[in-house]
Amino acid sequence: MTAEFERYLALSGGVGGAKLALGLSRSLGTGQLTVLVNTGDDFEHLGLRICPDLDSLIYALSGLSNQAVGWGQRDETWQCLDALAKLGGENWFRLGDRDLATHILRSEWLRAGQNLTEVTTKLCAALEIQTEVLPMSNDPVATEIICQSGQSLSFQHYFVRERCEPPIQDVRFKGIDQAALNPKAAALLGGPSPLDGVIICPSNPFVSVRPILDLDQMARRLIEHKAPVVAVSPIVSGLAIKGPAAKMMQEMQLPQSALGVAEYYVNHYPKVLDGFVLDVQDEHSASDIERLGLKVLVTNTMMHSLEDRCQLAENVLSFCREIA
Amino acid sequence: MTAEFERYLALSGGVGGAKLALGLSRSLGTGQLTVLVNTGDDFEHLGLRICPDLDSLIYALSGLSNQAVGWGQRDETWQCLDALAKLGGENWFRLGDRDLATHILRSEWLRAGQNLTEVTTKLCAALEIQTEVLPMSNDPVATEIICQSGQSLSFQHYFVRERCEPPIQDVRFKGIDQAALNPKAAALLGGPSPLDGVIICPSNPFVSVRPILDLDQMARRLIEHKAPVVAVSPIVSGLAIKGPAAKMMQEMQLPQSALGVAEYYVNHYPKVLDGFVLDVQDEHSASDIERLGLKVLVTNTMMHSLEDRCQLAENVLSFCREIA
Repeated sequence: MTAEFERYLALSGGVGGAKLALGLSRSLGTGQLTVLVNTGDDFEHLGLRICPDLDSLIYALSGLSNQAVGWGQRDETWQCLDALAKLGGENWFRLGDRDLATHILRSEWLRAGQNLTEVTTKLCAALEIQTEVLPMSNDPVATEIICQSGQSLSFQHYFVRERCEPPIQDVRFKGIDQAALNPKAAALLGGPSPLDGVIICPSNPFVSVRPILDLDQMARRLIEHKAPVVAVSPIVSGLAIKGPAAKMMQEMQLPQSALGVAEYYVNHYPKVLDGFVLDVQDEHSASDIERLGLKVLVTNTMMHSLEDRCQLAENVLSFCREIA
Repeated sequence: MTAEFERYLALSGGVGGAKLALGLSRSLGTGQLTVLVNTGDDFEHLGLRICPDLDSLIYALSGLSNQAVGWGQRDETWQCLDALAKLGGENWFRLGDRDLATHILRSEWLRAGQNLTEVTTKLCAALEIQTEVLPMSNDPVATEIICQSGQSLSFQHYFVRERCEPPIQDVRFKGIDQAALNPKAAALLGGPSPLDGVIICPSNPFVSVRPILDLDQMARRLIEHKAPVVAVSPIVSGLAIKGPAAKMMQEMQLPQSALGVAEYYVNHYPKVLDGFVLDVQDEHSASDIERLGLKVLVTNTMMHSLEDRCQLAENVLSFCREIA
């Protein structure tokens, strides 16, 4: 079987996941890759529907992303936000001028009755993105951070406004019991056409991957589907490449390591994972992870350059083929 | 009586009116000037509530206006609109990045339940505007242009998208029968404290001043109030300084002249005007306008510089005092 006829599904949060998704999109042809994206981070702000993880994917796959800061668009300007602050508006969420256009149009199309999948497809088409990018659900799911102080914060308030500072107690996903898995993803996992692998991108397991796996029997669907499921560790050498994953692990009293991530997935989603990808820096944990019942790939998972993204993608795809 | 204790009300549309309002604001102190602004041009666009005439006033009075192009903000950028166009969004209405902040905040505050007067007051306060700027009404009024083709266009579609090209048959103001005059303006005109003059700015009589005068017995209120009412001609030497007023007069078979404007006001709003201000270039019409029963001031009405605006304001205020 050549790569030409293969079909993969990637589960992704924002920035880290988007890097691997970009690599996968370069390795696979049109029609071969679907990225199912967390929407638990979505929120309404200043009347705009903002989908940070979808935007990270869209910007990464269209070449618009700002790789220097790791979020938003490159060549971004901040005139509107500056004027907004002068008028007394909230400016804790960094809305760039070009980024604003995405939020304005998405909000407009949603108000016009299109669902989030249709809107996302239109945005991708306008930017000539070949990869299929799907929100995990068309229904609202809202991530809430329950802080150790007892305070409950919506995800963006925790993540951006409070800079992930409050120690967390728990995470809840409001609406998840009522939300349906994206019908296109459900068809991919339940349909007659084979899927050659499911790749859980190096995204935050607790706030980016968990909402996707908790949604509408997604974990069961992955178990029942025969395609190999492999996860790439977002923790390298005990540190999160980006974001609060490692800090959250500490606060949740989980070991801050790639092994800790593998244990989390195996304990909370038994039988879902077939393979685990960890960085060469964490090679010492490979045997412990194998003892959890997982196949292990040790490789470079640090994606500084486009070449790194493509190389990791190739390695992960080969790993899927080996497991299958 | 010194200018210190006087109180004036100006009725204004957008750019032309805003120029005189700025001059008046320099001649009068805090608490002496209220500008009542047309909101018939307001519209919803991309989910944003846009109030072009209020914005022209706010930008002129705060020193933010772009005097080169005559609308919007100075030092404006167009990143959002550019990105919007690339995503397939409508870009016929020129939304600048800094301008967008006004629309986003206004829309947000309106959604939160504040009325347009409260929102306008907050925007003015943020920009340290001393003059009281009031929307003519807190209720929606929508200007519709009935074209000679029979087509009906919302005002901004006619004005911006179609660049005033379709010949007009008539103008209608949807909602005007249900709309209440701004309570603060009603109090000014009906209350116990004296008003020393009402100045109709050099705005388009048919689409900027007419909605204010047609609103909630405004014409009757002006007649019953003892303060002199003077209008400044927006037509100089047969041409509109800005906008489609002259073209509209031709299409409505009115004489394209300052005299034509005076006749229009006298015929449609009998007894409202006490005085009329026309440009030195139109001095030849002064006696014809006096024969309509109006006092006439002939002066320079061309407002190229800030000095022009202030000088015209001084002359108009003196004219009001003479009439009183």
